[in-house]
This record gives sequence, C-alpha cells and structure tokens, in this order.
Amino acid sequence: MTPQPPADNNDHLVQSEDPEHPANLIPSLCAKFWTLGWVTGTGGGASIRDDDLVYIAPSGVQKELMKPQDIYVLSLAAQAKSLDKRSRVYLRSPPYYKPSQCTPLFLAAFTKRHAGCCIHTHSHWAVLVTLILEQQAPGGKNFEFRINNIEQIKGFGKGFEKSGNLGYHDTLVIPVIENTAHEEDLTEFLEEAMDKYPDTYAVLVRRHGLYVWGDNVHKAKTQCESLDYLFQLAVEMKQLGIPWISDIEPTLPRRKD
Amino acid sequence: MTPQPPADNNDHLVQSEDPEHPANLIPSLCAKFWTLGWVTGTGGGASIRDDDLVYIAPSGVQKELMKPQDIYVLSLAAQAKSLDKRSRVYLRSPPYYKPSQCTPLFLAAFTKRHAGCCIHTHSHWAVLVTLILEQQAPGGKNFEFRINNIEQIKGFGKGFEKSGNLGYHDTLVIPVIENTAHEEDLTEFLEEAMDKYPDTYAVLVRRHGLYVWGDNVHKAKTQCESLDYLFQLAVEMKQLGIPWISDIEPTLPRRKD
Amino acid sequence: MTPQPPADNNDHLVQSEDPEHPANLIPSLCAKFWTLGWVTGTGGGASIRDDDLVYIAPSGVQKELMKPQDIYVLSLAAQAKSLDKRSRVYLRSPPYYKPSQCTPLFLAAFTKRHAGCCIHTHSHWAVLVTLILEQQAPGGKNFEFRINNIEQIKGFGKGFEKSGNLGYHDTLVIPVIENTAHEEDLTEFLEEAMDKYPDTYAVLVRRHGLYVWGDNVHKAKTQCESLDYLFQLAVEMKQLGIPWISDIEPTLPRRKD
Amino acid sequence: MTPQPPADNNDHLVQSEDPEHPANLIPSLCAKFWTLGWVTGTGGGASIRDDDLVYIAPSGVQKELMKPQDIYVLSLAAQAKSLDKRSRVYLRSPPYYKPSQCTPLFLAAFTKRHAGCCIHTHSHWAVLVTLILEQQAPGGKNFEFRINNIEQIKGFGKGFEKSGNLGYHDTLVIPVIENTAHEEDLTEFLEEAMDKYPDTYAVLVRRHGLYVWGDNVHKAKTQCESLDYLFQLAVEMKQLGIPWISDIEPTLPRRKD
Repeated sequence: MTPQPPADNNDHLVQSEDPEHPANLIPSLCAKFWTLGWVTGTGGGASIRDDDLVYIAPSGVQKELMKPQDIYVLSLAAQAKSLDKRSRVYLRSPPYYKPSQCTPLFLAAFTKRHAGCCIHTHSHWAVLVTLILEQQAPGGKNFEFRINNIEQIKGFGKGFEKSGNLGYHDTLVIPVIENTAHEEDLTEFLEEAMDKYPDTYAVLVRRHGLYVWGDNVHKAKTQCESLDYLFQLAVEMKQLGIPWISDIEPTLPRRKD
Repeated sequence: MTPQPPADNNDHLVQSEDPEHPANLIPSLCAKFWTLGWVTGTGGGASIRDDDLVYIAPSGVQKELMKPQDIYVLSLAAQAKSLDKRSRVYLRSPPYYKPSQCTPLFLAAFTKRHAGCCIHTHSHWAVLVTLILEQQAPGGKNFEFRINNIEQIKGFGKGFEKSGNLGYHDTLVIPVIENTAHEEDLTEFLEEAMDKYPDTYAVLVRRHGLYVWGDNVHKAKTQCESLDYLFQLAVEMKQLGIPWISDIEPTLPRRKD
Repeated sequence: MTPQPPADNNDHLVQSEDPEHPANLIPSLCAKFWTLGWVTGTGGGASIRDDDLVYIAPSGVQKELMKPQDIYVLSLAAQAKSLDKRSRVYLRSPPYYKPSQCTPLFLAAFTKRHAGCCIHTHSHWAVLVTLILEQQAPGGKNFEFRINNIEQIKGFGKGFEKSGNLGYHDTLVIPVIENTAHEEDLTEFLEEAMDKYPDTYAVLVRRHGLYVWGDNVHKAKTQCESLDYLFQLAVEMKQLGIPWISDIEPTLPRRKD
Repeated sequence: MTPQPPADNNDHLVQSEDPEHPANLIPSLCAKFWTLGWVTGTGGGASIRDDDLVYIAPSGVQKELMKPQDIYVLSLAAQAKSLDKRSRVYLRSPPYYKPSQCTPLFLAAFTKRHAGCCIHTHSHWAVLVTLILEQQAPGGKNFEFRINNIEQIKGFGKGFEKSGNLGYHDTLVIPVIENTAHEEDLTEFLEEAMDKYPDTYAVLVRRHGLYVWGDNVHKAKTQCESLDYLFQLAVEMKQLGIPWISDIEPTLPRRKD
C-alpha cells in the first residue's frame, strides 16, 4: 500500500536546530499531550502544515518518546495530482513506522480549511461527552455538543475565514460523527461535518475522541486545550445535574465614563 | 486603542538575571499554573507590582511558554495621571502580543488594596463552585461562597491591613460577581465587591474563574492554592452530600501545664 | 529461602550505557509508572525478558527512585532445570533488596506466552473495576471485565501468536482472578486464566491490580496504558449510568471511489 | 516565644553534598509532596530524625521551593531536659521563617514511637475520609477509618516494635482525632491516640489531614503513599456505594507441589 520513499529519503526535511521547526514541534507537542492524557497508548496524533509541506506523526509510536526522525513528510500539491486519492506519496518516510491512519483526516483540515495544524486526541472527556449525548437520545445519531455561558468559550475562533472569537454568551457547537471500524473511513464523515458546520474548528468522533484544527499550531493547540477544558467541565456538570445550555441575561457594565 | 511604546521600549525593565525579578517570576509562575489547570488555553493570567511598576502577562499567550520579553510594564503613577481611565501608557510593550483584558482588574487590586501580586485563574473548581451556587438558588445573583471548619481556611489573611490569618472555625466568604461579555467590564463589579467585602482577598467570577491577590507574590500564590484546594473540596463535598457550612463546637486542648 | 548469588555477582549484567538496556529501561519505566499512580508505595513492578535473561525490579523499592544496580537477573533455562520450582537461582542480585513476590507471575508470562515484558500495577482504576464487578454479582467469582465499541480497544493485540489488533466493535475480555494472601500464590490462578483465556494479554486481580504483558516492552507498556484508560473510562461510565457493553450497528464508510 | 539561635547558628548542620542528608531530603520530599497535593498553600510538612538530631521544615514556606537553609534543627536530648515543655531550643534556625506548629506533633512520633521520619499532609482524600465518617455518624467523635481486603493494606507495618506487615485480609484501622483551633494543641490528642492504638503508624485529623510516621524516611514515605491511595480508593468506593469493610473468605492457593 505505502509507496517506497525516494532513494535519498529527504531526511533533511526533518533535520533542524530550530525548536519551532515542525519536525521538532510535533514531538514536543505530543510529549505534552501524553501528560494530558490525550494520546494514551499510541492513540491520537498531530500534524503540522508549513505551506505545501505536511509533517505527520507516524502510527503506533509512543507519543511521549517520538523523535524528529519518526516524522512523515508529504507535499499537498503532489498529493492533489495523485489519481488514486487513497495512495500517498511521501517525500520522506521514517525507517521504522507505518503512516498514520489519521493522515486523510489531517489532509481534510489542510485542504478544506487551509489549517496549519490538526490535532487528534483520545481524551476521556471527549469520549464521555459523546457517551452522555448518546445516553440522552438512545438510538440517535448526528449528535451535537452544545454549551454556552462559560468564559472559556472565548477560546474559539468565530469560524473559517472569520476574524475574532466567540463571545461568552455564544453557543459553541461541536458536531459528533459516527465512528467507523477503520479510522481512515472517517474521512468522508469529517468532510461532511465540515460542510454542514462551516464554522467549526473541531469534530467529535463518537466513542473515539476529537479532531481539532487551527490556522496555526498556536490556535490548534489552544483550541484543543479549551475544548478539553469544556468537555471536562461538561462531564462534571452532568454529574452535578447542571445543564450545559443556560438562559442567562447578559450583564451590562455599569461604567458610564 | 493601545498607545505606542516609547522608541527605546525600555526593554531593560524585563531583563534581569535574578529569578525573583517580576519579569522572570511571572513566566515561571504561569508555567506552574498551567500544570495546575489554572490557565488553560491562554486563559487566566498574573501580574506583579514592584513599588510603582506593574508587570503584566500579555493576552493570548500560551502560559507555559511565556518568556520575560513577553511582559508588559506600566507605571501606576503615570496611569493615575491619565485623563482617560481606559487608556494605558505602557513603559514597555512586547513586540508580538496585545495587552491583557485583565489589566484594569489587576490595577484595581494594586490601587484599592495595595496588593503586590494578583492572579486570575479559570480553574474548573472555581467555575463549578459558582455553578453549584447558581443551582442552589435559580435566578439568583450576588452569590457568596462560604465554608468553615476546614483547616486550609487558615491559609487566608484576616483582611486588608489586618494582621494574622483566619482560624479553623472562621467562615471564609468569597463573593461571586456576575460575568460580563468583555473581561474589562468586570472592573466595576470587582471594585464594588472590594468595597462590599473589605476583607476579602479574592473574588469569584460566575462561570468564569477567580481573581485573587496578596501583599506579595508569596501570599497571592499560596492564597490562590488554598482557595483552589477549598473549591475542589467543596465540589467533592457537594457530590457526597456534605454541606459546606457546619456547626462544630470548638475542641479545647486538654493540656494544663 | 533466597539462594546466595555467585561470588562475582555478575554486576556487568546490569551495567550498560544503552538507555534501551533492560537494566536501564526498568527504572525509567517504573519512574513513569509512579507518576501514573500505578506503583504507589512500592506496590506493582515490572520485568523484561531479553532472550534467556529475565530482569526484575526488586521488592520494597520506591519505584520512582529505582536504579539499574537494584535489578535482579535470572536465566529462564537455568530456572527450567531447577527441581524446586519455588526456588530461584539469580545470576545477579542487588545487595540491598529482596526478590519480588511477583517473580513467578512474571515468569508465567515469559514461559507460557513468550512475552518480552510484563507489568504489574496497583492502579486505582483496575481495583475499582473489580469492585464494581463484585458489586454487580455479590458472592460471585470468576468475573470478567468486558467492554466494546470504544476506539481504544484497538490498542490490544488479537491474541497469542495471532497477528493484528482487536477492532472497534470487538469485545475486549479481561479475566479477573481471586486475590490470595501471598502474591506468589497467585501464580496458579494466573496460569489457569492464561489457559482459559488463551488470547488475553492481561489478567485483573480482584481488589489488587493488574498483570499485563506483551511481546516486547513497547507492546506491554502501550497495552497497559490502553487498559488503564479503559478501566478509568469504565469507572466514569458506571458513575454516569452508561453500560460497558453496547449494541451499536457498524457504520460503513460512504466512500465509493 | 522562640528562643534565639546560638551566635554561630550551626549552619553546618544543614550543609551537605549528600542528597540523603536530612537537610537535603526534606526539601526534595516536600517538592514531591507538593505535586501530589499533600502540602498545598504552605500546608503540611515533614520532619526527619537522625539519632538525636531532628530536622524540621519551617512554617509558612512554599513546600516546592524549600531549600536546605530553611530547615530547623533541634536536639531531642536537649529538648528532654527543658523544664518548659512548650519552649524549644533550636540548635539551628533559618533566618527568614518561624518554627512549624507541627513541631510538638513530630516530636511525639520521635519520642513515643522512636520514629525516624514523620509526614503531615493536608491531602483532600484524608479530609474527605473524615468528612464521610462524620456524615455516617452525625454528632459523633472518636471516629476510626477501617478498611480490609485491599492489596495495598500490605504497605503497612504490623505495629510498633513488631516485625512484618499487615496482610491482605487484615483490617487497617486509623484513628481520627478532633481538630483544634491551634495545631500545637493537637499534640495531646495525638499522644492519646498513640496510647489507645499502640500499633498505628498514622492518625487522621478531622477536617484537617494526616500525620504518618515510620522507622525511617523510606517507611514513612511509602506508608503515607499507601494511605493516600487507600483514602482515595475509599472516597471512590463511597461514591459507587461499595462498603470499605467486606467479608471475603480467604482464597487458598491450589498449588500442591
């Protein structure tokens, strides 16, 4: 399935002294994500796009131990010219690993949303939120996670090609797609959700986890943190019997200077 | 909105080899707060006052990655002379960030309470405490968090310009102010709460988080830790059906030597 | 009970500059496990097999402080020739510690399953899962932990000498054995469970913890992480009233290219 | 109240290159305890006895930032000769801090039990266990925490001057003493509990925390970890409706070789 890398393997693409280089950033981010419980047991992953080049964590690696030489690199332009959309031509492949099954999902964020970074977590809180939604509507599908009137909602952008962030009273909506037996088969569902929810920066996968992206690494990472915070809060609210959506009249400032 | 920094930008104000210098302390404190879940996803912040100079973490920075060169510095005296109370004249501004929306709230702690440090967290426990108060009095406002007969209450000072700390049997009271759409609009509410609760060192913000201050960095940080401990305990007590206020007769020591 | 080590004590067996050497890996793994709450208060342990040689953490050591010189080494071949199955001939013994009571259980994984690594944890989540099973069938024995339709299930191999991993819809089954007063007396029960569940890579011990193994360190460690994740999720699902086994019809991919 | 230290202040007592020296161990242990949530906001503390010398963390220090030069040292023999049992003659005092109010409680463990180390935590789990006991017997006093049939119970010694540890089926009993307004007034209650429970290595303080000791640092620290594990488990069992005491018939090993 995986085409062989070129003879020279372009190892220079993952060699840099700059800690901000994608091949260095992905391992340091993933080590941090491991401590947060997002990428337990080789689950989850991350990918960064730098112009035409896409850097991807491999499959099956212990995320807190990943090294720059474990990173795959591919070209979006070369990929777009490929006749077989399911094949990948990697500019650079690591010697020991297989490509991530998340690859087509990361590519969807890069091509359909011009994202600069996409993160996939298996966070407990994300999974529990989808289980609670399912419990509230047995047999249902096409769930949405909705929450409002929580300050951390401001951590999200208003949407694709829109400037500014959501406000405190806005309702954050994250669609939930069905999980499939094979991760790469999620791609169509992810793309559908992107079409149906043009302003979302994230998609929950039922009983699986989260995909979240942003214009750059900073935005993807901080949006992922804010979402995980909200999912945890939502589970705790559920345990305390507090609804996720509330009707709170805006409080106006009293200052009149 | 933001006035331009002076031509030389006073970068020396944030350059020091001393780890106790405010420009070094704010990043190291914020990195610690990030691991505690207090400043997730660029939320929260911290500010230190050294005599007339105020050092402030910028807006939108990943708190665990902050550097001394990211810090704003302003003069309280210069600020007091400003005719427009909403404008700020920064002695030193970082090249890449915007000023924090928390700035006027930090200034309130410095000017109204002569605090030496003010910390703002988005801690889950703080938010959950405000949600539980709201659940117990639907439609209510002007909530107070009250707890007594817990040893950790001793971690708090008795109040502004009072010496000594609260005792085990004392009731710690933390007022809760309403959240506003824009963080800077909280300032009036915070100042009102300071007037109404002259001895409090902290104010909860509904569905948002906590502001806590102290005479110096040590006191602000340890009071913030103790409060977060008590909020977590309070949420766990609620889940177990244990009330926050109890009527326990003081136990006297038996020693008679 | 413990035979004396040879005069030279073979200290070279635990001296290596290679961080991947078992005598270096066991301490670094155990330090990581301590931060995960798996080996609290000297509980739990880990063992690595390199061909005929077995490296074992000692009894009673603070796991986050363990050093290569604390490691026991024995030979599987020499052990197999021993007439007394309960005695051990160590090629190398540390000067300050006693052998781990887990030793015969680790050996069972190495001899009956050709495992390359075996991990024993006292994780809260593992203990709570056995308590929940007990609560659901008072007076029962021979419990099984069963869960399906959770993505993290894919982190497990299909079974001994089978290639590939479990799928999302597969039911992961982990047998629970009774705890005994002395840890080494668990060996028979562990071996029985291995016989009865030929494809399992793990056995829960009631009110005690978990034994998990894998073909190599990577597989044992990542399977242990995935199991702990699932146990934690299972406890949280129980608290929310969500069943561990669900009947979800597979979702097929829509792509037809 | 505090007698002045001798003119030379004996600073050499806290200066050593040996990481196992008490003046180095107390800061490294306390930094670890801070990450475990045991010494939040300057709460809690630790003391080590080396023959006649007692090393004590000071009052009011941020435990994760403590340094060897912050440590108090006193002589048990000199203390025993003091006519006023409430005064302390410190061989060495730090320049910036006050003595810990825990001092007489640590001394009780050293003099009445010949302990080598005593640890005091404000762990949430310890406090919650006392709150649950109180909830189960409103108005009661003289509570006991009792748990059996959990493997981690083996982490405790059988008792003062007894060799060996508790077994899996044994019931671990930890007395709970009433909290007093001033920490030093707990001393009499602690000593009473030591008399009434001659084999205990720990005493819970209602709505306050835990005192735990051991023959040496290793035993005090690992017993403290095991207790905290059991308290956390007990709270989680309570939330799931699982009793702390169970009637489980011992399972005998089947091996007959």
